[in-house]
Amino acid sequence: MKFKLAFIGFGVVGQGLAEILYSKEEELREKYDFEFEVLAISDVKLGSIYNKDGVDLGKILELVDEGGKISDYPEGKTGLDSIETIKDTEADTIIEVTFTDMETGGPALEHVKTALNEGKHVVSTNKGPVAQEVNQLLDLAERNDAHYKFEGTVLSGTPAINLAMKNLAGCEINEIKGIVNGTTNYILSKMEESMGYQEALDKAQELGYAEADPTGDVEGIDAQGKTLILSNTVMNADMDLEEVERKGITDITKEDIEEAKEGNKRWKLIAQSKRTDDGIEAKVSPEKIPLDHPLAGVMGPTNAITFSTDHLGEVTIIGPGAGKEETGYALMVDLLSINDELKG
Amino acid sequence: MKFKLAFIGFGVVGQGLAEILYSKEEELREKYDFEFEVLAISDVKLGSIYNKDGVDLGKILELVDEGGKISDYPEGKTGLDSIETIKDTEADTIIEVTFTDMETGGPALEHVKTALNEGKHVVSTNKGPVAQEVNQLLDLAERNDAHYKFEGTVLSGTPAINLAMKNLAGCEINEIKGIVNGTTNYILSKMEESMGYQEALDKAQELGYAEADPTGDVEGIDAQGKTLILSNTVMNADMDLEEVERKGITDITKEDIEEAKEGNKRWKLIAQSKRTDDGIEAKVSPEKIPLDHPLAGVMGPTNAITFSTDHLGEVTIIGPGAGKEETGYALMVDLLSINDELKG
Repeated sequence: MKFKLAFIGFGVVGQGLAEILYSKEEELREKYDFEFEVLAISDVKLGSIYNKDGVDLGKILELVDEGGKISDYPEGKTGLDSIETIKDTEADTIIEVTFTDMETGGPALEHVKTALNEGKHVVSTNKGPVAQEVNQLLDLAERNDAHYKFEGTVLSGTPAINLAMKNLAGCEINEIKGIVNGTTNYILSKMEESMGYQEALDKAQELGYAEADPTGDVEGIDAQGKTLILSNTVMNADMDLEEVERKGITDITKEDIEEAKEGNKRWKLIAQSKRTDDGIEAKVSPEKIPLDHPLAGVMGPTNAITFSTDHLGEVTIIGPGAGKEETGYALMVDLLSINDELKG
Repeated sequence: MKFKLAFIGFGVVGQGLAEILYSKEEELREKYDFEFEVLAISDVKLGSIYNKDGVDLGKILELVDEGGKISDYPEGKTGLDSIETIKDTEADTIIEVTFTDMETGGPALEHVKTALNEGKHVVSTNKGPVAQEVNQLLDLAERNDAHYKFEGTVLSGTPAINLAMKNLAGCEINEIKGIVNGTTNYILSKMEESMGYQEALDKAQELGYAEADPTGDVEGIDAQGKTLILSNTVMNADMDLEEVERKGITDITKEDIEEAKEGNKRWKLIAQSKRTDDGIEAKVSPEKIPLDHPLAGVMGPTNAITFSTDHLGEVTIIGPGAGKEETGYALMVDLLSINDELKG
């Protein structure tokens, strides 16, 4: 079927998806019967455009690449803000890729609600709304015959959520243990190569893995949000962010790393969510993982999750946890999955 | 929806599924809207039963557990052979779990064809028909509005095929590399703990990982069949078994293992299928894997596959490769996936 798309936000991730859509248009039609038109784009910095007959994605990407504004696109209406773009255009599917605000959900929460209330599908890599009220949003989607997908909120395009929700259907998942933050995993990997914490952090910043203010990563805040998402989706919990215990990696020393090594273990920042008699318990904390466990071998910025199940024991998926193309692809697979479900 | 099931074969794997169906009947209905009745079972050794109102799965499992025959079940028609059970009963979904014959497909091939020709869905863990003519069978299924699923032919219930075909939709998979035989991986793991080949094989036989005649495993024949299946499904090839090059692990010595270790590598029997300018090339052979690759950390009877993709780079899944419950579950997830597709 043919999707009429609107991008809310057109930063790195949005552009990542746009590039995949643009370069694979023909293949997507032939292989998956997936067709699309981009009707609208609205971005806080780059301005907005709306054309009910569709815009030329190639030209838009060129424009942005050359430092231009989306509102410079020659044909269409400019000046619509994000809510107007969601409500007042003929787009039937909203790609929500604005900035993440874990504490309140931010404007993204309003974007998702508005779209679902209009019966429009939403694909999003935005952790805010999912962390805040995923179950309410999924209910809202169902009531309005719309789909809400967010594979990219955890492990970017690596299919962690779909794996748990679809491929492991019929299994009871009793515990999730994962490496869900690439920056801290990179730092710990480098410390094992004998760098100190500060040196490893500098290196991560130099490579663009860590931001100038690394707090969100190294204090486990990013991982905490993802743990909440995994708990509230895969584990069917209904928790708030504060209920996920959190401890980062800033206290780990070279000596700790050496000591673990001697015991055939390796420090990892582990996101954990498990079923207990008192409900789901979730936390983020550094943990010494035995070297023969699949998570121990996951080095550098790579991410991984182990699902402990009744029928299969442990199933582990390992893949990228970030990146423009990788996260853009998460939106692509969400769109294909809606396409599949609508075809029936 | 409600499935009317017929088991063709009721050995370990069939019973594995039956136990899951029996123990999770209520959960499957509530959570997945999946309902079922078992109308018929036909097994070469245990006899057959057909009752259009359904048989009591609990009683059947009890009967078999106590060493009885299925044909001893009190209510229903006995004596139907496999083809009659497929054609002449009201079952709409066939669970094909007879013995595997990789060379010809064996009676299983006839079973699958007969069922699909009748417009009946087939779920199967039987490698024979998939290896022989998967593409023709999938065409036949489509022409008859039926579904043919076989997740359990590779990595038992670990969702390798679904991961590649569904969760990685939109990605180009350029190479598959996997550990798809648990017996040989167990032997190689034990050899690293300083056992000789023969001692490790004895141990594998003692634990039931290896058969009395271990040729199928140690010469790579089992892995060859799975490589063919991955090539013809995930990689869209149309190959015959002979086109998959094969070398087993019987030549690997303790010295080889030590030498690899010194170079920070580890021997694994690797199933490989890759896209080249001349089409798909597939082979099974022992390979030295760098210790920092996810496949290197997969020890004992565990299986794993790494998919190399355009958008995500490498994505690896690790999980069990065999077992009664694990393989029975593969059929369960196939049934749930048909249920999903029929609901639309």
